[in-house]
Amino acid sequence: MSISLQAEHGGDLSAARAAFPQAPEPWLDLSTGVNPYSYPCIDLSAECLTKLPDSGALRALEEAASKAFDVPRHAQVVAAPGSQAIINWLPHLIPARRVGILGFSYSEFARSFAASGAKVTIAAEPAALQHHDVAIIVNPNNPDGRIAAKRDLHAVAAALANHHGLLIVDEAFADFVPAASIVPKMPASGVIVLRSFGKTYGLPGLRLGFAIAPAETAARLREALGPWPVSGAAIAIGTRALLDTEWLALTWERLQTDAAAVDKILAAAGFEFVGGTPLFRLVRHGEAQRLYESLAQAGILTRRFDARPDWLRFGIVSLPGGRKRLRTALGLGLQRSENECRVD
Amino acid sequence: MSISLQAEHGGDLSAARAAFPQAPEPWLDLSTGVNPYSYPCIDLSAECLTKLPDSGALRALEEAASKAFDVPRHAQVVAAPGSQAIINWLPHLIPARRVGILGFSYSEFARSFAASGAKVTIAAEPAALQHHDVAIIVNPNNPDGRIAAKRDLHAVAAALANHHGLLIVDEAFADFVPAASIVPKMPASGVIVLRSFGKTYGLPGLRLGFAIAPAETAARLREALGPWPVSGAAIAIGTRALLDTEWLALTWERLQTDAAAVDKILAAAGFEFVGGTPLFRLVRHGEAQRLYESLAQAGILTRRFDARPDWLRFGIVSLPGGRKRLRTALGLGLQRSENECRVD
Repeated sequence: MSISLQAEHGGDLSAARAAFPQAPEPWLDLSTGVNPYSYPCIDLSAECLTKLPDSGALRALEEAASKAFDVPRHAQVVAAPGSQAIINWLPHLIPARRVGILGFSYSEFARSFAASGAKVTIAAEPAALQHHDVAIIVNPNNPDGRIAAKRDLHAVAAALANHHGLLIVDEAFADFVPAASIVPKMPASGVIVLRSFGKTYGLPGLRLGFAIAPAETAARLREALGPWPVSGAAIAIGTRALLDTEWLALTWERLQTDAAAVDKILAAAGFEFVGGTPLFRLVRHGEAQRLYESLAQAGILTRRFDARPDWLRFGIVSLPGGRKRLRTALGLGLQRSENECRVD
Repeated sequence: MSISLQAEHGGDLSAARAAFPQAPEPWLDLSTGVNPYSYPCIDLSAECLTKLPDSGALRALEEAASKAFDVPRHAQVVAAPGSQAIINWLPHLIPARRVGILGFSYSEFARSFAASGAKVTIAAEPAALQHHDVAIIVNPNNPDGRIAAKRDLHAVAAALANHHGLLIVDEAFADFVPAASIVPKMPASGVIVLRSFGKTYGLPGLRLGFAIAPAETAARLREALGPWPVSGAAIAIGTRALLDTEWLALTWERLQTDAAAVDKILAAAGFEFVGGTPLFRLVRHGEAQRLYESLAQAGILTRRFDARPDWLRFGIVSLPGGRKRLRTALGLGLQRSENECRVD
């Protein structure tokens, strides 16, 4: 499988505006898996920006994360300015020649490890990951929501540990699928788990993510990130949000209702459900590329994949007005698509 | 000169509170070189946190920085979550065996390069830097405000370029000493300049800094930092602040007045002026260590240096109340110091 090093990502409205200059504003951005219900952060103290982030406050954030993710005693939590920052650092901290990634998945691992000179292979099955120096499983997977079996995760970790290999589990989308998480029973060595904050709490602009790792790896990551790894705002909001289990439960319920409503709209437009999490839906359609364009012309940005031209990924639409806009745009797109077929 | 890898930094109030639990709250933190007049950032749009940072907005931030720093066409600006993040990355992007740092200076360069396995030497003169793979000059220097002569900077850069070496100039404190900056006339290759945002604009908790580098080095740094290197808040506030030359000029005036008032208080307490910038003053006193303790007991945190026991660095005190508190605490400290000497 070919790996594009020039990764494309959701959420880039500048690029969308440039490509579709006639699209009506404001754009409805469904191209990311970001929670449309963002955690409230209005009463932010000015101190969180006007002072250097404090070491004690940073520790409190990491403790809140440890509690929220149910981190076992033998592992440590390290905060970073986004889990992406950790993905950038890992190849420099963990020398790896052969890197295996359970595909089809988030492109940044391949980019980051390939840039460091590693040979990156995309594997179709967890078992095929066992002979690599580093194996990567995104779980739940992005973009299809696939959940790896616990026994597969532990089997890969054990096989890699036999030759001092390392399993990286990216749990960016695990907060709303907590049963999928390996964290509470993660082995004492040979596994690093990444968690994202911005997606779940609807604040990706904050830049906050975590690594959960054995003490020695955690220390190396801390050293790499240096003092003041995350912003004062990320520390203040993150600490409060991660301890707010009530908000998480309530939001989860709302997202499930909204996701069901989105599924209904997509099914009515002829999309076949491929997978998803409460934060995004992956669907298949023979006219996916045409529909992507039609939606974009109507100011609705979705995520398409060069390597999977019949797939589209949709974020969750929380407002009824947004869902109506999506339904209408899909209807128009299908009509246009049909007319074009007739002319052909 | 020995290099401590466990760097100490200003601004760590958690550590100060633990060491001086009886000190009155709130602490007056003079341990950093952070502008006490922070750039106003009240009308921040929620979008800057609830959306992934946009590539177009990031480019606009870098363009604003380019204008503010007077960056020549042959160089590029790269935004990072603090110039510290760039310091962490540099040893991984620029393989260097022999690293020379113009001392006595900011400790993080030595820590970062030594951690990557480089042999770090502290040089007393710019000329002594010429035979290294990488030379580092903090200009104006932290903590003493020393300004390197332009001809020295260019001579070191030229000498290093002869054997494919690289000069790193850290201009974290150059915004209020713009004549010191090498940026407008930086050579087309062999020089990287770092700039800090948080110190000048009083927002170190925001985490924003820049590298100014030739295109090839800039591209490698961008690749290392990956997508979404800085927060949406940093992009929004940074872009606005960097274009606000009026605020910078006005604040500069206020800081100079305040710095003069602080100098007067320090001189009255018997401190000898060593150097500084409009954001900090470095002073010498035979009783510096005792005064550090006395001030801390009074809830005033200053910066001391293990390797220079007779030095203290003071941030600028903007409020008359704060200056009164400093004056009183210094008076009490000197009294106590005198009494202790008598008892001895």
